[in-house]
Amino acid sequence: MTIKRHFDEDLRSLCDELLMMGGLCEEMIMQAVRLLTNRDESYLEKVKANEDRVNQLHIEIDDHVLRLIALHQPAAGDLRLLAAALKINSDLERIGDQAVNIAETSMFLCQQPRNIKLGDIPRMVELASEMVRESLDAFARRDVELAQRVIEKDDEEDRLKSQTFRELVQLMQADASTIQRSMDIILIARNLERIADHATNIAEDVVFMVLGKDIRHGAGQRRAPAA
Amino acid sequence: MTIKRHFDEDLRSLCDELLMMGGLCEEMIMQAVRLLTNRDESYLEKVKANEDRVNQLHIEIDDHVLRLIALHQPAAGDLRLLAAALKINSDLERIGDQAVNIAETSMFLCQQPRNIKLGDIPRMVELASEMVRESLDAFARRDVELAQRVIEKDDEEDRLKSQTFRELVQLMQADASTIQRSMDIILIARNLERIADHATNIAEDVVFMVLGKDIRHGAGQRRAPAA
Repeated sequence: MTIKRHFDEDLRSLCDELLMMGGLCEEMIMQAVRLLTNRDESYLEKVKANEDRVNQLHIEIDDHVLRLIALHQPAAGDLRLLAAALKINSDLERIGDQAVNIAETSMFLCQQPRNIKLGDIPRMVELASEMVRESLDAFARRDVELAQRVIEKDDEEDRLKSQTFRELVQLMQADASTIQRSMDIILIARNLERIADHATNIAEDVVFMVLGKDIRHGAGQRRAPAA
Repeated sequence: MTIKRHFDEDLRSLCDELLMMGGLCEEMIMQAVRLLTNRDESYLEKVKANEDRVNQLHIEIDDHVLRLIALHQPAAGDLRLLAAALKINSDLERIGDQAVNIAETSMFLCQQPRNIKLGDIPRMVELASEMVRESLDAFARRDVELAQRVIEKDDEEDRLKSQTFRELVQLMQADASTIQRSMDIILIARNLERIADHATNIAEDVVFMVLGKDIRHGAGQRRAPAA
């Protein structure tokens, strides 16, 4: 096999590792939310088991990327792909952290009376998961249009979070007995917003990787690195 | 000048850029907090002006790192340094985002009655800023011991945040008229906790860069990448 074909295969297996890690993160979000909606505390253990796997992959993928750079001395597009992989790896690991936070807050909520309104939380979960999945699909397929659609969805997640905040502050003001529970839901809304932010970061990395153009901070007209 | 000396000089100027960016982030935190404590809304503009500079540096530093990798094809320690620079760059940019969030929430608080207790917030600010500064010092001096002290400080920041949460939930329960203000302080405490998390990430990257050993996720015994 030629060096070039070796490299292409290595890149493919790196992408597979990132997609696997993304799949675990999505599963963690779902498990954390089931803990909340079904009040089934056994999901905490499942989330934690997946966290261990995500953390392991996080270390392995960083390793893998550095090894590929040192071995193949890539330039231009391949180098941008490897830099993107390093960053996506960090974002995925932090998405996993946020899912753990949701699970831990949900454990507190399981101790509380049942009648707390979840409001837009289920919609926020759905949207954040969709954004994670689509940002990784965009990475795997180098699909700039899909990445841009993910970035646009972030505004909707922010809007849902702000609405959730407003509703819960009103609820707390109307009935002080809901304060502790409402605070917990507010924290979960924040975790979901952060997951959407990480998916947005991933989507921005995909655009940069494919076009060599940095769309972060509205710098759409910037040229690719000289590399 | 030899290629090697060129490379060393390029690395030094990359480090300088990161330190400059870190200095701007520290300044942003201070400005955001003065908005809160002095109720001086003119600081919002100052924070935003610094945000523009941080965002510009964020793009330039990424560019710089990719160019250095492509030009010099580094291995081992130098490659780890460049990978660390990419990650530290992302963490600094997000620290700047958190400072902007603090400034924006503080603008709301400026509209509210004066008598809100800041509790441990000043101590949290001091500690978070110290962690940012020391993590970057550790990077510049490749000082693993200093990096490890930064990592240890994160527990104290978490403890202060939890205490702030508890106190403010009690306050809201005792007096519903404080709910909106207390919520804002809780959000600021969260922003500060996240700044400390980013500083911890930077410190962990420094340890990995210097020792080639990944201390994230308690994997202290892991060997360096084969590169």
